[in-house]
Amino acid sequence: MITDFSDRLRSHALAVETRLAALVDGELGASPARRLVEAMRYGLLGPGKRLRPFLVIESSALFGIPLEAALDTAAALECVHAYSLVHDDLPAMDDDDIRRGRPTVHKAYNEATAILAGDGLLTFAFEILARIENRVDARIKLELILELARASGAMGMAGGQMLDLEAEGSPLSAAEIARLQFLKTGRLITFACEAGAILSQATPLQRAALLGYGTAIGSAFQISDDLLDAEGDPAEMGKATAKDAPAGKATLVALLGTEGARTALARRVSEAEDFLTIFGPRAAILNETAHYMTRRQA
Amino acid sequence: MITDFSDRLRSHALAVETRLAALVDGELGASPARRLVEAMRYGLLGPGKRLRPFLVIESSALFGIPLEAALDTAAALECVHAYSLVHDDLPAMDDDDIRRGRPTVHKAYNEATAILAGDGLLTFAFEILARIENRVDARIKLELILELARASGAMGMAGGQMLDLEAEGSPLSAAEIARLQFLKTGRLITFACEAGAILSQATPLQRAALLGYGTAIGSAFQISDDLLDAEGDPAEMGKATAKDAPAGKATLVALLGTEGARTALARRVSEAEDFLTIFGPRAAILNETAHYMTRRQA
Repeated sequence: MITDFSDRLRSHALAVETRLAALVDGELGASPARRLVEAMRYGLLGPGKRLRPFLVIESSALFGIPLEAALDTAAALECVHAYSLVHDDLPAMDDDDIRRGRPTVHKAYNEATAILAGDGLLTFAFEILARIENRVDARIKLELILELARASGAMGMAGGQMLDLEAEGSPLSAAEIARLQFLKTGRLITFACEAGAILSQATPLQRAALLGYGTAIGSAFQISDDLLDAEGDPAEMGKATAKDAPAGKATLVALLGTEGARTALARRVSEAEDFLTIFGPRAAILNETAHYMTRRQA
Repeated sequence: MITDFSDRLRSHALAVETRLAALVDGELGASPARRLVEAMRYGLLGPGKRLRPFLVIESSALFGIPLEAALDTAAALECVHAYSLVHDDLPAMDDDDIRRGRPTVHKAYNEATAILAGDGLLTFAFEILARIENRVDARIKLELILELARASGAMGMAGGQMLDLEAEGSPLSAAEIARLQFLKTGRLITFACEAGAILSQATPLQRAALLGYGTAIGSAFQISDDLLDAEGDPAEMGKATAKDAPAGKATLVALLGTEGARTALARRVSEAEDFLTIFGPRAAILNETAHYMTRRQA
């Protein structure tokens, strides 16, 4: 099962990367700002697990939607994720030099190019969703755009990053940390999980179950990320670790300790499983994805 | 006529500002990242002519579309314009401290907040277009989103800003300057002018005429901007002037001299007039807008 899952993760990642490269080349290849497009490609197509696209594809597969029909939504979401990493790594933000084992975009290019590359990737996400050429209904595309914008903007990921910057050095409660992390990390993951329900026009109950599942695994993902920062090997992670504690970052690991955080993580995975019960055995892969959070190494 | 035009510009600006404030309060007012939303508001609602929204409203009025039905498209475009100013002013970009007579966003807040506020405004533009609640057809909304994304991204405005940064200190030809400025400034203006044609599903000829008109006034606007930088009064402009020449910025004023630039500006206005002839007297306001480029003071 574990091997199956890892193979599937890698295989979807490859499909998404191939599609992203084709979209960038096809839509932006003629841009006279060649260095900008190169920096966008660099930020977008470095090594990565493509977890969010994976969730778009698998939440769609739950309703019988083939990979090809979910691929552009997955690609658009990965553009938003990549933009957020490029901007978060900037000196004025988290000031990171290494990402996925390579220099960050502002190190490989420069700061101005990194700001514009992030802007370009964010914009490109909406271009991809608006141009999907298959038989997806226009109202479904609009719903994807609206939900992705809400998940990414001041009410979502960008708002979470702001709260995270403001929180450095100030003590937050467990509830405040959970809210911050739900916005910063969770919202893109819930979008990924809801995407299948939107694309298939699922029932409100099915969509609510996927939202609950996404919320639970988003939280599990963040806790496992914080555990990896506290305990992980920088070489395996491809980025600096043990950064959170000295920076006074608000994490559940700092608040509950390693063991407490592991317990919270296990509870999240169990919640995620519960939300999937209405789908029966069709949800086996999503179930496996929840368990993956407890054993990922990078 | 001049008074009529100025009144109309101010009246539309007020309608757009009122709508923007309502959209921000309504959609983002509940964000826990209050300081981020405040910075977005600051960047969005400072003094401004709202020329791009004006063009959306007037290109729509050309086809009988009432102001209310064009207002959200106008508001979305202004969000993109505002985001571009916030990011362009950053230290790593044009490094400006004053904009519209007030401290720029990174001066009034800080750099990280300014980066996130720009990101939030760009994202909000697409949220506004996707959520338009009136009877606009879903396919029309998607076309607006696609065109706005293309006008703003690596093939448009962001690409132009990249070329502008790369060009500092290196001599460009008149054709290269024109291409750079078409991307950096022209594309949002052509979007504004085409928006009316998209909203009204105008004929291809009508849309092409508005594209030509937008290209001509976009160029006229940029030349008048460069003339104001060379000759304008910083107090009236609300920002630093005489910045281009010391920075080695590629402008037509630097290449052709003040008189040569004035001649080019007059030619652009005349081209804009030509494109409007197919619309007859209905295009009087758009005609007046073209002439406004030759006499604006800020």
